[in-house]
Parts: sequence; C-alpha cells; structure tokens
Amino acid sequence: MTLKVYGHRLSQPSRAIIIFCKVNGIDFEEVTIDFTTGKHRLPDFKEINPMAEVPAIVHGDLKLFESHAILCYLASAFPGVPDGWYPADIISRAKIQSILDWHHSNLRRGALNYCINSALGPVRSLPLNPQAAIEDEKILSASLSKLETVWLKGDAKFLLGNLQPSVADLSLACEIMQLEVVDEKDRERILGPHPKILEWIDNVKSATSPHFEEVHEHLQEVKARIALLKSA
Amino acid sequence: MTLKVYGHRLSQPSRAIIIFCKVNGIDFEEVTIDFTTGKHRLPDFKEINPMAEVPAIVHGDLKLFESHAILCYLASAFPGVPDGWYPADIISRAKIQSILDWHHSNLRRGALNYCINSALGPVRSLPLNPQAAIEDEKILSASLSKLETVWLKGDAKFLLGNLQPSVADLSLACEIMQLEVVDEKDRERILGPHPKILEWIDNVKSATSPHFEEVHEHLQEVKARIALLKSA
Repeated sequence: MTLKVYGHRLSQPSRAIIIFCKVNGIDFEEVTIDFTTGKHRLPDFKEINPMAEVPAIVHGDLKLFESHAILCYLASAFPGVPDGWYPADIISRAKIQSILDWHHSNLRRGALNYCINSALGPVRSLPLNPQAAIEDEKILSASLSKLETVWLKGDAKFLLGNLQPSVADLSLACEIMQLEVVDEKDRERILGPHPKILEWIDNVKSATSPHFEEVHEHLQEVKARIALLKSA
Repeated sequence: MTLKVYGHRLSQPSRAIIIFCKVNGIDFEEVTIDFTTGKHRLPDFKEINPMAEVPAIVHGDLKLFESHAILCYLASAFPGVPDGWYPADIISRAKIQSILDWHHSNLRRGALNYCINSALGPVRSLPLNPQAAIEDEKILSASLSKLETVWLKGDAKFLLGNLQPSVADLSLACEIMQLEVVDEKDRERILGPHPKILEWIDNVKSATSPHFEEVHEHLQEVKARIALLKSA
C-alpha cells in the first residue's frame, strides 16, 4: 500500500510532511502539484482534495488533507515512528495539539501572508501589497514572541521542553523557514529579536538532517526566481 | 480532580466545550471570564492561558487552551464518552482532525470576523466595519458551500456521513450559531442558500438537547444588548 504525498516544496506544510516521511523511513511517492501555476485547481487533484490545496495524501482508500491531520495520521499509522513525534500519552498529546491549533490563526496566518505580500506574490501571479505586509508582520512578530516566551521558555531544546522534536516542532519550524524567501534585511528585522527561535530551528534541523536542508533547498531556487522577476 | 472550564457563552468554542461536558455527564465547574470587559487579559487568567484567550481548562496539573485540543483531550480523558465523539480508529479520527484543522482558516475566520465587523463589535468596544464585513462574508459563504458539498454530501445526518455527532459537528455548529446575533436579513442571506446546513444544525441540536439550546440562550441576551446599543 504505497503512500502518495501530493505537495510542493514551496508549501511549508508540504515540506513538513515530506521531511517527516524521510526522517522516519516511511516509503512514499512524492507527487508535485505546482500550485503556482494553478495545478491544484484541476479536476484530477480536486478528486483527492476538494478544497484544492496542497498538501494531501492518498494511503490505500484514505484521501486526507490538512497537514496537521496528515502528520498525526502518519505518526499513528506507521508503527516504526518514535513516540516523541506524537506521543500516545494523552496529556503530552493534548499539549502538542494545542500548539498545532494555535499555529493556524497566529504563526501561520502571519508568516504566510507576510511572505506572499512582501515577496512571494509575483511567483504566484499576485501583486505585492506592502500595506497589508505591515499588518501581517504585526501578527507574525506577536506570534514569534509567544512562541519564544510560552513554548520555548527555559532552556528547552524543543517545544514544551521536550528532548525530542514533535510534529509541532516540524510544522512550526517549516513555517518560519519560509522567511528565507524575503529580503535579508526584512528577515533579520523579524527574526533578529528571537535568538531562542533561531537556536530551536537549528535543533530541529540537526534532528532531521540531512532531509530538512535538502527539502528546503527549493526555497533558494524560488529566491532566485523572485530576484529575476524583480530585475525584469 | 475537578475539571474547571474557563470560558464565556458568547465565545463559540467555549460553548462547544460546555455543551460537550454536559452531554457526556462530565462533572465540571464553569468559570466565566468576561472577555468583553478585558478579564481575559488579567494576570490571574494569563497564568492559565498565556495567550489570554477563552476557553481554557484546568484538570489536575494540566492547563490547556485551544478548544479543539480541549475537546479531543476531554473525549480521551473521560472514559464514559461514547467513541463517536472522537473515534479511536485512526482513519475516522484523521478525517475528523482534518475538519477541525480546516475550520480555523475557513469557517471560523469567516464567521468570527463577520460577526464582529457586522454586529458584535460594540459589545466588545470595537467599531463596526461594514467594508471588512463584505470580505468576511465571502470567506464565510465559501466555507459554508464547502461544508455542504464536501462533508454533508449525500443524506448525511452528521459530518462525514456519520450516524453520531463528533467533536467536529459540535465545534462547527457552535460557530455557525454565532450568526444568531446578526441582523435577521443578513443571516437569511448567508444561511438561506444552505438548507442542508440548517438541517444538520437541527440534528446536532437534537443530539445534544437540551444543553445545546440552554447554552445558546446567552446569544439572545447579547442580541438584546446590541439592539440597545444601536438605539442609544
């Protein structure tokens, strides 16, 4: 029963799922759906995800979308995955779930919209919107502050003071990595005040090396495309 | 070990948790945190939820926030809860999780912001914003269409064609019930095209009666307050 992962390496939740599979030795076929050219809206893909968004998976009869649901499913469905990724203990699990839920309306909302409005828009044939980016940055920076003071308080190596990364570490780290595509001065202004977050991302990177770096290489290609579009 | 639920009946995720506890005979103490007057930002409450939002729970040593995480925890921690609310089967669970994740950036984003910008603002000392409400309504209506055509397709009594309600039914139904506070003509314009959703909400109501109605009574009080503020 082959697992198919439909995604795109420019999509932060797609990256999280691809890295998760590689780190845990889960055999899968990666199917690239290029949402920058509208491929996610084609009927064939909407048969898999009627919401027309990446990522999605097909595993046997199961078609599943929403990256957090996918990560939790994979951690449960493949017996070789170490417990730390998504602990069976209901209290540990509930705390990870709380971070995943918080992510949607806070860190993800801020980071995704900031990246689109300040840099990525043209790659998706959308105009840049510097005014909206100012508001997005406020949500992003407030989210980074909460991440640092609430879940990385103390000398925690991973979120919640855990010794091993969980699906929440991977999902949130991939989100922040998206900032690689924005101007360096913007990234420094936003991430500079958060040394603990930078250290934590390094920890996630080390724990998932070399897959984390390999899957994120695509962002450098996108950055080059943005520079090209700018100079045109 | 008493369960404490910190919430407010004007908050749709708080209502979902209160109804869930009542329906499942979970003994709990309801602590009202009046976020309309800023009580959620007081230091005592931030000790429980550093994000300063309702709802949150305290159960023994566990402090937990984010309503979906709370609902899943309660369904797992209290052995008397029927399996249908949050099935142990990983495929059924993954599909419910997918709806819960989708909820954040779609139905919730549309409904919450629409209600604040078109009606609830003054109750929270915020101005109404009819221009923003137009954009919110687009997200809300697109979400309602997806809800009807994806998860309520066929003659399903509950989401995913289930015979019993899950935590996703309760969470999403409480979200849509928030529209009780907006003008009747607005509510009819938005919900009118979705007869299957109205029928589904009736199914959720029946399955959780009389608690669903009792907990939602507060919305009528709020509606009266809005009318009073309007006429002042």
